[in-house]
Amino acid sequence: MENTHNFFIPKTNLIGVGAIKDLPNQLLSWKLSKVLIVTDKNMIKLGYVENIEKILKSLFISYDIFDGILHPNPTVSFVEDGLRYFKQGWNVFKRDYKLIISIGGGTNHDCAKAIAAVAVNGGSIIDYEGYNKITKPMIPLITINTTAGSAAEVTHTAIVTDNTRKVKMVITSALLTPFISVNDPIFMTTMPKEVTSSSGIDVVSHAIEAFVSTEAFPITDALALDALRLSFEYLPRAYENGNDLEAREKMMYANIMAGLAFNSAGLGYVHAMAHQLGGFYNGAHGFNNAALLPHVFRFNSTAIPEHRILKLCEAMGTVTHHKEQAINIIIESIKNLSSVIGIPGKLSMMGLEEGDIEELANNVMQDICTLTNPRQGSVEDIIDIYQAAL
Amino acid sequence: MENTHNFFIPKTNLIGVGAIKDLPNQLLSWKLSKVLIVTDKNMIKLGYVENIEKILKSLFISYDIFDGILHPNPTVSFVEDGLRYFKQGWNVFKRDYKLIISIGGGTNHDCAKAIAAVAVNGGSIIDYEGYNKITKPMIPLITINTTAGSAAEVTHTAIVTDNTRKVKMVITSALLTPFISVNDPIFMTTMPKEVTSSSGIDVVSHAIEAFVSTEAFPITDALALDALRLSFEYLPRAYENGNDLEAREKMMYANIMAGLAFNSAGLGYVHAMAHQLGGFYNGAHGFNNAALLPHVFRFNSTAIPEHRILKLCEAMGTVTHHKEQAINIIIESIKNLSSVIGIPGKLSMMGLEEGDIEELANNVMQDICTLTNPRQGSVEDIIDIYQAAL
Ligand SMILES: [Fe+2]
Ligand SMILES: [Fe+2]
Repeated sequence: MENTHNFFIPKTNLIGVGAIKDLPNQLLSWKLSKVLIVTDKNMIKLGYVENIEKILKSLFISYDIFDGILHPNPTVSFVEDGLRYFKQGWNVFKRDYKLIISIGGGTNHDCAKAIAAVAVNGGSIIDYEGYNKITKPMIPLITINTTAGSAAEVTHTAIVTDNTRKVKMVITSALLTPFISVNDPIFMTTMPKEVTSSSGIDVVSHAIEAFVSTEAFPITDALALDALRLSFEYLPRAYENGNDLEAREKMMYANIMAGLAFNSAGLGYVHAMAHQLGGFYNGAHGFNNAALLPHVFRFNSTAIPEHRILKLCEAMGTVTHHKEQAINIIIESIKNLSSVIGIPGKLSMMGLEEGDIEELANNVMQDICTLTNPRQGSVEDIIDIYQAAL
Repeated sequence: MENTHNFFIPKTNLIGVGAIKDLPNQLLSWKLSKVLIVTDKNMIKLGYVENIEKILKSLFISYDIFDGILHPNPTVSFVEDGLRYFKQGWNVFKRDYKLIISIGGGTNHDCAKAIAAVAVNGGSIIDYEGYNKITKPMIPLITINTTAGSAAEVTHTAIVTDNTRKVKMVITSALLTPFISVNDPIFMTTMPKEVTSSSGIDVVSHAIEAFVSTEAFPITDALALDALRLSFEYLPRAYENGNDLEAREKMMYANIMAGLAFNSAGLGYVHAMAHQLGGFYNGAHGFNNAALLPHVFRFNSTAIPEHRILKLCEAMGTVTHHKEQAINIIIESIKNLSSVIGIPGKLSMMGLEEGDIEELANNVMQDICTLTNPRQGSVEDIIDIYQAAL
């Protein structure tokens, strides 16, 4: 009964209200000279980048700022812009960056991972699509997280859109694990409502997909179920009032826990299918997930053992002992949560055009997230799910 | 409401039946030359060391073996013997050890951490007693675990007895975090019955103390409660039949989960008091914990919120809505589990002499595990608990 699971995570994770104050301690022992900050203009405007600049200045660490990440669903061109900036700093100004710090949500962390990996490994980020293609350790990365969220600040995956193929590439490698992650809810209160709902339902999707994954194991189960409990309790509150620091804090924990769960257990069809929509239409990742979740769950439910269905249902707030009833409650609970936090429930509202479905479905079959889905389907099954969610 | 928590863990954890087969992959990218194995003669006899030697040989990595760990409750002298061995290899035979691999249970991992840290930081391990005294990263350590357990294979703590003071020193530092941990139940089936029960009840103690700790947070809560669930279900089976690979596997998960929980949430009086008994009488750590647990829990119970007491009780298998009832059930459940797995329930059976209690109690107050106990007591309180458990 061979049965192995690798549990990957940054060695050091600073978590909680005020956690950022511990960052200087962590940096002190490094004797760093040059740092590259990877972020976007909004993070500068919100003052988050300045917070980090102050820390670096106080430690006499010099830094440059690449703020060329222009929108969510990051593209290969952002990574290439970042690499150009990196190389210019390195070659022209002799800045030997020993550390990269990403400030923002998953988009910024993903771009920073890609820049940090390609800077060392060479070539283009496209060369590393798939599983474990990266061979040399990337430049150490510290992720300062501002959403809850993609969990990219703790995971060893980067998602980057290749515009020429309209495909969201999944790049997964143990070597993409950040060095230190910082999750401080103080950086999360300014999330706009639609980011709270989109990133929040992403957490729910991570938790559900990690729990039903073929690679789930007791550590990921414990984390996924409690992430789900926290999300169902606190996401409506965080959405309702962005300054509700307790709700923000609980969603931050839910984000990390669901992230650690899927980072080791993997995801499934919801993400494999949402990635393609992101590549085609550039909509909000979480909204795509939300529309797909009920239909993928219905499709998967025949392959999930009863006792696990009941546990999922319980984590969403209802105790029952009947599998079919639990499946219906789970689907209704997801739809209900989505509508409470203002998520458009159909993929057509996210830009999906029926004529594209076949191409999308073919691309889904190449996405590595399909590997850990509990029920393997055909292209026709995927087409049916897209149709149902249209 | 500042409220921060650092979550530390090895970046890579290979887990499950057959996990050891992934170790060569992990070592490949390193281009290692020399490795020091830290272990004991029993591990050699059981063939576990040979398994690792085969892996190293296949990768053309040369190694030396220090097998001078003579018994559990490791002493400063084992660490000094190991350091002498290390330095002789380094100076006389020009072996620049780039990696240390510990094979065994907590004792061996703790010694290896101490050797790896002092080899770089200099001085004696006694200099580093307490919290965050180590300043330079230790030699990278891979822990191959054979018990379930102390969780030393994933934690950033080493426990070493200073015989001159009869004190178990607690040495905690983020820099003691191992580089890779390996938990493969195949290495655990040979655990003798008394090691299964002693290390198993240690897991239970870690889970309970981490859950009631003042530093508990949602991630550690999820891990602690499920560790407790698994232990109450599978520890009697692992004890009854050591070859029950499913029970061994589940206890391995419980060990890791409780370990990750207490590594970030801390422990409490059970461990602070058990450490002193270990320093004085060299008895089994888990047995000391088992005798103390009911009495410490009774003492702490007034300081633990009702909803958390009820959750603990539920994790041990009983649902109730009354705090006082839950406290009694928890205490009875612990005693019952201990007796099912053949643990002597009283400290007098573990060597405790009444005349020593005052000195022990005074030492308890210096143990850093007291800091996160939910209720702070006086020396008299500690004396009372020792008396009650006598
Ligand atoms: Fe996602
Ligand atoms: Fe322990």
